[in-house]
Amino acid sequence: MAPWEKYLIEHKERFMNELFDFLRIPSVSALAEHADDVARAARWVEERLKAAGIESVTVMPTGGHPVVYGEWLHAPGKPTILVYGHFDTQPVDPVELWDSPPFEPTIRGNRIYARGVSDDKGNMFIPIIVAEAILKTGASLPVNLKFLFEGQEEIGSPQLPEFISANKQLLRCDMVLSSDGAQWAEDQPMVVLGTRGLAALFIDIRGPGHDLHSGTYGGTIANPVHALVHILDTLHDHEGRITVDGFYDDVRPITDEIRAKLAELPYDEAQYLEETGSPRTFGEPGYTTYERAGLRPTLEINGLYGGFQGEGLKTVLPAAAHAKISCRLVADQDPGKIIDLLVRHVEKVAPKEVKAAVTGNPSGAIPYLIPPDYAGLKTASAVLKDIYGKEPYRVYMGGSIPTNALFLEHLGAYTIVFAFGQLDELQHSPNEFLRISGYEKGQKAYGHLFQRLGKE
Amino acid sequence: MAPWEKYLIEHKERFMNELFDFLRIPSVSALAEHADDVARAARWVEERLKAAGIESVTVMPTGGHPVVYGEWLHAPGKPTILVYGHFDTQPVDPVELWDSPPFEPTIRGNRIYARGVSDDKGNMFIPIIVAEAILKTGASLPVNLKFLFEGQEEIGSPQLPEFISANKQLLRCDMVLSSDGAQWAEDQPMVVLGTRGLAALFIDIRGPGHDLHSGTYGGTIANPVHALVHILDTLHDHEGRITVDGFYDDVRPITDEIRAKLAELPYDEAQYLEETGSPRTFGEPGYTTYERAGLRPTLEINGLYGGFQGEGLKTVLPAAAHAKISCRLVADQDPGKIIDLLVRHVEKVAPKEVKAAVTGNPSGAIPYLIPPDYAGLKTASAVLKDIYGKEPYRVYMGGSIPTNALFLEHLGAYTIVFAFGQLDELQHSPNEFLRISGYEKGQKAYGHLFQRLGKE
Repeated sequence: MAPWEKYLIEHKERFMNELFDFLRIPSVSALAEHADDVARAARWVEERLKAAGIESVTVMPTGGHPVVYGEWLHAPGKPTILVYGHFDTQPVDPVELWDSPPFEPTIRGNRIYARGVSDDKGNMFIPIIVAEAILKTGASLPVNLKFLFEGQEEIGSPQLPEFISANKQLLRCDMVLSSDGAQWAEDQPMVVLGTRGLAALFIDIRGPGHDLHSGTYGGTIANPVHALVHILDTLHDHEGRITVDGFYDDVRPITDEIRAKLAELPYDEAQYLEETGSPRTFGEPGYTTYERAGLRPTLEINGLYGGFQGEGLKTVLPAAAHAKISCRLVADQDPGKIIDLLVRHVEKVAPKEVKAAVTGNPSGAIPYLIPPDYAGLKTASAVLKDIYGKEPYRVYMGGSIPTNALFLEHLGAYTIVFAFGQLDELQHSPNEFLRISGYEKGQKAYGHLFQRLGKE
Repeated sequence: MAPWEKYLIEHKERFMNELFDFLRIPSVSALAEHADDVARAARWVEERLKAAGIESVTVMPTGGHPVVYGEWLHAPGKPTILVYGHFDTQPVDPVELWDSPPFEPTIRGNRIYARGVSDDKGNMFIPIIVAEAILKTGASLPVNLKFLFEGQEEIGSPQLPEFISANKQLLRCDMVLSSDGAQWAEDQPMVVLGTRGLAALFIDIRGPGHDLHSGTYGGTIANPVHALVHILDTLHDHEGRITVDGFYDDVRPITDEIRAKLAELPYDEAQYLEETGSPRTFGEPGYTTYERAGLRPTLEINGLYGGFQGEGLKTVLPAAAHAKISCRLVADQDPGKIIDLLVRHVEKVAPKEVKAAVTGNPSGAIPYLIPPDYAGLKTASAVLKDIYGKEPYRVYMGGSIPTNALFLEHLGAYTIVFAFGQLDELQHSPNEFLRISGYEKGQKAYGHLFQRLGKE
C-alpha cells in the first residue's frame, strides 16, 4: 500500500468530520436567502484547499455565486489537470419527506445521508484529500493540478461561461477531471461519453388583477389556469413526443453502432421501476430507455402552480398561473435556438384572453460528446478497471454538466467525468445519500489516476 | 325617526367595536388549524345574541363546525322569520397582497377592511343589532324571529343538510332571510331570483415514488404534471364551453322573457373589467356576461400545483401533481350527477402511465330559483325601494348559497337574500372590505322589513 493510501486510512475519521462540516452548510444556490451560505461554503473550500497544501487558493467573484480556485504547479513536463466540482446544492423541498434533516449529515448503514453529499460535495471533497495525502506523504504531486470549484452548478452556472472565458490563462490545462457525476453501481464502474445540454424557461400567465370569487365571476372572465394547462398540453403528444415545431431538427440520429453498444449494457426494467417508484416506463416511441435518457432530448415541466393550494376548497378564479420548464438537449441542439422555438410556440398557442409572458432562463448547457478513443478516457478506464476489477461501461448520461462543453470551447480540453456517487443516490430528491464504499473507492481511484497520468 | 333607529345611532360606536372583535377571530373554516377559531366565533355569536335579548341561544354541534341557534317567539299570529348567516371566512392567502392584516379590521375612507367583513360577518351582525335595538326600545318584536348562523358556509356547509333535516321542528318558519349576499351598488338595491349550485372535486396524479432528477430520468418516466395538464385541458374548448359529456344535459334554457329582463339591467363592460382587473371578458359563446354569470354553469380550476415552485429553477421530474376544481350549477343540474360525470370524464382521459385519483368534494349546493311573484320578495323589494329610492334590480347571482335550496327542501320556506355588502367588495380576495354606507343602510332595511312583515 502506497504511503498516500495509508494516510487516507489513518485520517479517515478526521476527513469524515470535515465532510460533515461541509455538508452542514445549506449552500442552496437557487434560493436568494441562502446566498450567504453558498459564500460560506466557498470559504470553507478555500480553507480546506489551503490546508491540503494547495497554493494560490482564492475565492473569486463571478457576478453570481463565487468560485474557488487553487493550484499546485511543481511538476514540470507533466500534464496539467484541472479538477472541477461544485459546492452548491439543490433545494430540499419537500423537506417533510426527509428521514433526517437534509443539512444534518447522518450515517445509516453504509451510507451518508445529506443534501449535496452525492451531488457534489462528497465527490468534490475526494480529490482535495487525495492531493493532501500525496503531498503530506511525498511532498510532490505526480501531475500539475488546478482546482476549480463553483457555487452555482445547480442553477445552470449562469456566470461561469464568462468567468472561464475571462480566465483562460489561469485555467489552461491538458485535461479536466469532473468530480460531478456518478458510477454505474457499487461494483460496476462507467465512463461517460456524453452529457445532455439544458435549456429552461418560465411561463407566467396573468388574467384578472386579483383572485376573483368564482361564483360571482366564474364563466365571464378567462381563468389563467385554463390558459396555462392548454399551453402546456400542446408541448407533447400522448406518446411523449415533443410537438414544438423544429425541436428535433438538429438532433443527431443515433447510429446503429451506438445503438448496438447501448443494447449491450445490462438493463433491468424491474429494478429501474423500483429505483424510480414509477408504475411503468414511458417515453418517445421507437427508443429504448437508455437511448431516451442519454441520446434523445426531453421537455419536462419541473413545476407548476396557480390559485389555491391549501387544504380543502377555495372557490377562486385565480389571478395568475405559472410553470417552470426545462429541456435536456443532445448533440447538435443549441440551447438558445431551443428557447427561441419554445417562446415562439407559446406565443402561437397562448389564448389571447390572458397575458402570457415567457422568459428564457439565462443559463443553459450545450450538449457534450467526447471522442470514444480519447487517450485520457483510456487511462481513466484502466484505473477504474484496476479498482473495480471490471471494464467500465461506456454510457451517455442524461444529466447536464454545462462545464464539459464550456471547458472544451474555451480551454480546448476534454473533460473526463470521474465521480464516485451512484445513479440511484437520490440526487435532487429527498434522502439524498452517498455510499461510503463509493467515497472510499473514489479516493483510491483519484490517487491512482494522478499517478498514472504522471507517468504517461 | 323610530326609537330603534335612534338606538342604533346612539350605540353606533359600541356596535362597531363589537364588530371589530368579531372580525378579529380568524374563523377560516377550510383550514384545520383554525377549527378552534371557528368554535370561538360561534361562542362570540352566542354571547352576542344573548346580549341582544334573543332567547334559547345555544351552540349546537353538527359533526363539522358548529351552528348557533337562537329565537324570540312572542309575536303570536305574526309570521316566523328565520334569519340565516355564517361566521366562518375564506382563507387569506396570498396574505402578502393585503394592505392591512386580514384579521386586524381597519377603517380607510368609508370602508371597513377585514377578511369576512362583507362575507359574511358584517352582514350577519346587522339583524342581531337591529333585533336588540327594537327589543331594548319597545320590548317586543313585530315578528317571531329565529336565528341560524353556521360556521362552514365557505367550505360548502357539508353537515348542514343533515342538521336542518334533523331539526325541522326547531327551524320551522314562514320565510328565510339570508344575510349572505350583496346589493348591486351603493345607490342601487337588488333582489335575488336565483343562486347557482356548486359541485367540486379534487384530482391527484401520482407518477414516480419521489421527485426524480430530470436529467437522469427525464424522457423515460411519465411526468405527472404532463398527465394533469392533459386532463385539465380536455375540460373546455377554446371558446370556453365545457366539454364533459352530459354536463349541459339538465340545464334549463334561458327563456326569451328572462333574457329580455336581464338585458334591461345596466351593464358597463369597462367598469366590469376595471372591477376584475381583467383585460377582457370571456365565456361561453352566445351568452351575455349576466347570462354567463347567473344562468349558465361553469367549471373553474380553483388551484393547481406540482413540482418545484420556488425561486429559479429546480430540474426535477415531479412525483405528483394536483388540481382543485369547482363547478357552478344552474337549474336543474344536480351536484351529485355532475361529480359522477366529471369522475367518468377524468377516468376516460387520464393517461394510463400515471395513477389518477378523483375525489368528489362531499359538500355541494343545489341551484336555487325563487318564483318571481313570491309575496315576501315584493315586501323586501318595497323596503329596499323606500330606503334606496330606487326599484331594486331583479338578478340571478353567480355565487352559491347552498342553504337557499336546503331551506326550501326541508322547511318548505323560500329564502330572500337580504344583505348589504356589494358585489365589488373583494369577497374571497385580498383586501376584502365592507362599505360603512351599506352597513348602515342594512340596519334601516332590516328594521323596516321586520316592521312591515309584522303588519302583513
